[in-house]
Amino acid sequence: MMPGVRFGDPSVDPAVPSALRDHFCDRFSDSIEQRIGHAYDGTPLRSGRPLGVLRPASVEDVVRLVGLASDLGFSIVPRGAGTGLSGGSIPDPRSVVLVMSGWNRILEIDEENLCAWVQPGVVTADLHRAVEARGLFYPPDPGSMNVCTIGGNVAENSGGLRGLKYGVTKDYVLGLEAVLATGEVYRGGGKSVKDVAGYNLVDLLVGSEGTLGVITRVLVRLVPRPETSATLLALYPSVAVAARTVTAILSARIVPATLEFLDRTTLRCVEAYARLGLPGDAGALLLIEVDGRAAVVAEDAARIEAICSASGATHVIRAADEVEALRLKTARRAAFASLARLSPTTILEDATVPRSALPEMVAAVERIAAKHDLVIGNFGHAGDGNLHPTCCIDGRDPDQVARAHRAFEEIFRTALDLGGTITGEHGVGLSKKAYLPDAIGAGGMRWTRALKRALDPAGILNPGKIFDPDPSDHRERAPFAEETVPACERGFS
Amino acid sequence: MMPGVRFGDPSVDPAVPSALRDHFCDRFSDSIEQRIGHAYDGTPLRSGRPLGVLRPASVEDVVRLVGLASDLGFSIVPRGAGTGLSGGSIPDPRSVVLVMSGWNRILEIDEENLCAWVQPGVVTADLHRAVEARGLFYPPDPGSMNVCTIGGNVAENSGGLRGLKYGVTKDYVLGLEAVLATGEVYRGGGKSVKDVAGYNLVDLLVGSEGTLGVITRVLVRLVPRPETSATLLALYPSVAVAARTVTAILSARIVPATLEFLDRTTLRCVEAYARLGLPGDAGALLLIEVDGRAAVVAEDAARIEAICSASGATHVIRAADEVEALRLKTARRAAFASLARLSPTTILEDATVPRSALPEMVAAVERIAAKHDLVIGNFGHAGDGNLHPTCCIDGRDPDQVARAHRAFEEIFRTALDLGGTITGEHGVGLSKKAYLPDAIGAGGMRWTRALKRALDPAGILNPGKIFDPDPSDHRERAPFAEETVPACERGFS
Repeated sequence: MMPGVRFGDPSVDPAVPSALRDHFCDRFSDSIEQRIGHAYDGTPLRSGRPLGVLRPASVEDVVRLVGLASDLGFSIVPRGAGTGLSGGSIPDPRSVVLVMSGWNRILEIDEENLCAWVQPGVVTADLHRAVEARGLFYPPDPGSMNVCTIGGNVAENSGGLRGLKYGVTKDYVLGLEAVLATGEVYRGGGKSVKDVAGYNLVDLLVGSEGTLGVITRVLVRLVPRPETSATLLALYPSVAVAARTVTAILSARIVPATLEFLDRTTLRCVEAYARLGLPGDAGALLLIEVDGRAAVVAEDAARIEAICSASGATHVIRAADEVEALRLKTARRAAFASLARLSPTTILEDATVPRSALPEMVAAVERIAAKHDLVIGNFGHAGDGNLHPTCCIDGRDPDQVARAHRAFEEIFRTALDLGGTITGEHGVGLSKKAYLPDAIGAGGMRWTRALKRALDPAGILNPGKIFDPDPSDHRERAPFAEETVPACERGFS
Repeated sequence: MMPGVRFGDPSVDPAVPSALRDHFCDRFSDSIEQRIGHAYDGTPLRSGRPLGVLRPASVEDVVRLVGLASDLGFSIVPRGAGTGLSGGSIPDPRSVVLVMSGWNRILEIDEENLCAWVQPGVVTADLHRAVEARGLFYPPDPGSMNVCTIGGNVAENSGGLRGLKYGVTKDYVLGLEAVLATGEVYRGGGKSVKDVAGYNLVDLLVGSEGTLGVITRVLVRLVPRPETSATLLALYPSVAVAARTVTAILSARIVPATLEFLDRTTLRCVEAYARLGLPGDAGALLLIEVDGRAAVVAEDAARIEAICSASGATHVIRAADEVEALRLKTARRAAFASLARLSPTTILEDATVPRSALPEMVAAVERIAAKHDLVIGNFGHAGDGNLHPTCCIDGRDPDQVARAHRAFEEIFRTALDLGGTITGEHGVGLSKKAYLPDAIGAGGMRWTRALKRALDPAGILNPGKIFDPDPSDHRERAPFAEETVPACERGFS
């Protein structure tokens, strides 16, 4: 196995940084500030200092870095905005962080072929604004869309609030350019919306979390911008009752763009934080948005309003205008920030189940939280069965950390038992690789490893993410305890 | 290289059929009738007799066959209805045809989670009927939908007439079960509409043309059935003029379910065959279908009618009812049959370009046909830039075959030069592997071969399809001449 594959190995040949300086001049830095500044992503309780940081000026720089990694035995951790929640862009001492966020130009918006070429560092919300100004629409809208980048979205196959109607990032990648572990520049897909020439290599790169290639350009598919939208907010005594509305809406063959829920714990935190005037006794909230043509939106909003009341909602509010719609959406968008105020450390997960199993899953999370004496708020994409159980602890307390770990292990196991998965949109990264064998089975793991060995035999690209390089399916026992954060750096996490 | 990989090798150890009889009894046959009956698929001028045919009774049968193939050195050619147009299910003398068409049960329709588990042998149109009866919809509708099977659709990532609005097969595969070349049963995906746990192995199997796994079960995604639809037919002096309407409709941010074209040659054949009363002087036809909610469909149909006239249509007909709609659709659905009447051999291809390049591509096909003195009718999915240039020759005349081959080589080259691809929905199979290196590049080919080696090291599954096992990117010169059809069997082709 290549040295680059050894995760957490502290020994770095001093020849490596000096070789990188020689090749890349001031585009490479191994200053302590840069190394600490890139030791983290959006994942709490995880960090790792890289040997240095490269801001590439060109595809050639990326190719050269891959060649040097192969020659000198270091590894490469590609990074966009570093908003990931599964540790996918956390480096180790033998790795160079490859920062792509500076590549932030929209290269072309092709209105006739409904697509756009973008650099990987383009911020998702900037792409939204640019195409919406032309009457077009790029649906994927991860929670971090104002910060995260398209390259990161593609690497993680990010979802968002509009997944129920519009799908996720992979549904909008028509083609891409990537530097492979061999140093080869791969260009796949294109503006032909139908293309079955050979294996589906583009979709294999999407969601590969930087372990199979470094994405240097993306061709995204666009759709016409919805003419209008309507936003509704409904309150329920419990998530179980709210779930009846979710089923009733889909049984009525209405597919909202957004169908989100907040549980009692999250609702209380949101109200304490955002002061939206939500009744304190509500047990669950649904945020529903329908979009499309004016005639249909009006009709659907009215039908949904009736369905909510008939299904046991205690309050139903329909936004009169865009300003009120934004206020209602705040309830959902503020969920994470509101919970984060409760404690120094907020662990946001994304266990996912078939939507019909949502009530059972929410009840299980409540039981598990009580059992381990933890505060776990629950919210997320009800229409997708994609929950975000969010655990509020103090990461400096090993006992709380251990309990949180046991609770999430039970949560993931429950999701799998209900026919769900360990991650709906955040990726596996470091946080969930211990659970991947249970999610995809021994056969899936063997296949996964065979793919990685075939495409990155030297283990250069983001080693240790998704699965351990070690071919045995050894179950890592304490993912949270893997690396401790020095007190001086806790502010970063 | 394994013997199973050698394409066209006539020598078969007689121990193989007898071992297969011992294991599978009368589920295996090597009668001359079965071997001739499975020597063909929908692809003209290609055939190859297998050593035998297996109709498996269970997943265990498939696993056992893979084990025997590995032990005894034969290969496996999975087959659904055999309607493929790129030779993807044509066997060679060292292969066993694995016939899945008997596995034709719809196992579950889950209305709450909007999905269905189906066996691979379910006929596509049967699935349409079954889910539409529940108010649901399975959009992919390949031209052969009344005969072809879901397993074949998944293996080829089939498209259809509704691709523009609804996408292709891969957009509707939530999960699947497949027997891998290792004999392992892989189960991937599930009813969670969001799942990013590990590499996207499901989408890698979709479109892998039976070379990476044998699909034994498919979980398809369903959507609500459109409330209603409207069908329009417009005639133009030329495809170039018709293309203006395609651009105008999409610029108006209307996305029809169907946006098909027929060129002058095809139109004349259709009229001679179906007697629809189309004017003889028309240079192009557009068939346009919009579907969805009643209010929007009526509005869109009216806008499209106006756009057609404003963009140079000489006639615009809007179907008054479902009966008339079916009559209009006949013009498109009869295209292939009408052209097939012209000559003994009909070669239907699917070169694809970005939709904005459609007029240029159609003009190029006309020039190429004239240059080689061939009749090439052109029709297909205008909204997708997915053309079906259809060459009418006599396959018994080597000169016509050679000219057709040269013409298609120029057609594929033109498609690639216009930023398109060699196949939009038919697959590479045998017919287009000679052109794949030009389509995906040397890097793509190396990556493709690395994947195949990693997942099917013995080359058991459908060897010689998509690419030659030989690792060199040697350009095969005469794909049509690769195998000659014995006179006695020409009736089959």
